[in-house]
Amino acid sequence: MELVNQADLDALFEFLPCRTPDVWIQEALQQEEILLQNHCYLEQCAARNALQLMFRCPDKPDVLSKMSKLAREELRHFEKVHELLTRRGYAYKILKPSRYAGLLNAEIRKTNPGQLIDSLIVGAYIEARSCERFASLAPHMDDEISVFFRSLLKSEARHFKDYLTLAQSHSREPIDQRVAFFGAIERNAIESEDKLFRFHSGVPA
Amino acid sequence: MELVNQADLDALFEFLPCRTPDVWIQEALQQEEILLQNHCYLEQCAARNALQLMFRCPDKPDVLSKMSKLAREELRHFEKVHELLTRRGYAYKILKPSRYAGLLNAEIRKTNPGQLIDSLIVGAYIEARSCERFASLAPHMDDEISVFFRSLLKSEARHFKDYLTLAQSHSREPIDQRVAFFGAIERNAIESEDKLFRFHSGVPA
Repeated sequence: MELVNQADLDALFEFLPCRTPDVWIQEALQQEEILLQNHCYLEQCAARNALQLMFRCPDKPDVLSKMSKLAREELRHFEKVHELLTRRGYAYKILKPSRYAGLLNAEIRKTNPGQLIDSLIVGAYIEARSCERFASLAPHMDDEISVFFRSLLKSEARHFKDYLTLAQSHSREPIDQRVAFFGAIERNAIESEDKLFRFHSGVPA
Repeated sequence: MELVNQADLDALFEFLPCRTPDVWIQEALQQEEILLQNHCYLEQCAARNALQLMFRCPDKPDVLSKMSKLAREELRHFEKVHELLTRRGYAYKILKPSRYAGLLNAEIRKTNPGQLIDSLIVGAYIEARSCERFASLAPHMDDEISVFFRSLLKSEARHFKDYLTLAQSHSREPIDQRVAFFGAIERNAIESEDKLFRFHSGVPA
């Protein structure tokens, strides 16, 4: 298994505005079925989002190429999580979604190029947070899940950088201010109380 | 290159209600740019349709598994057609769609299980027709495209069977009548006059 290197993980932790609170980790350990069902669904959503960006950018070869490869990788992950669910006797269900992506998506500008740049920055946060949660959960899970989560870290750590690179390359100005703007929303979504436990939820209420 | 075997191709020609008219082939040879641009787009659409079926069938592991693999394969094809477009100096554009898929989709029942079964049968026709067009065009194209189209035949010939198998396995009755019903619509779309030249268009007006 090819593992993520520490420098990549450090870059990811530096990009994110905060680490996952311990209370969320403790809750996740009690909610394995929901955690995996929701993880499975999120891989499907990640593939769909990448494909939607492709339909919006036929004239941008870098977006098409990166997003097509990313969608294929997310689908491969979906298949693996689905196999894991099946082995554990859990049914795959699409659960009521977390507030997380909705809070970020609500702030995406409505016209281009802002819309594309914001969508890519939001994509970077979602990938980075997923990756951080895999890294935070792995030491606490059983061997099978722990090995699996570590195997996902490598590609997810790359995905967040791909999103950021695309965002900067399609923006005439530095994207730092928008990155910080979405970072503040992301931090709030992770650190404030959240009624619904999900893969991307905040502090359990 | 692994080639499609003749028995698979014969099964495909038997499933389809008609072969592509020669006048369409002659037109296609004059419209290489539109043909490839539209082919590229259709690979993206095929991936999107597979993913949409996955979102509609979280409780059907066979649909999830087949459609996830199919979507990955279509995306890989998309990347290859996009590379071919670029090598030839053609820009990738999303063109006004052909009437073809619209004519078939319009007849899909609106409630399940009919909706799912019909969607899968329509998927089978679209894949089978694409495959038949690759087979019909390949002998007339230049070496690069000819080799590429032949390489696509193998997987596309499998996709149409996957769709049909799924349709039958989720139907309590034999699907033959619905297959024949959509076959008549498909035949009309291919054999009647069509103003707009596209990968799936009818007889050039």
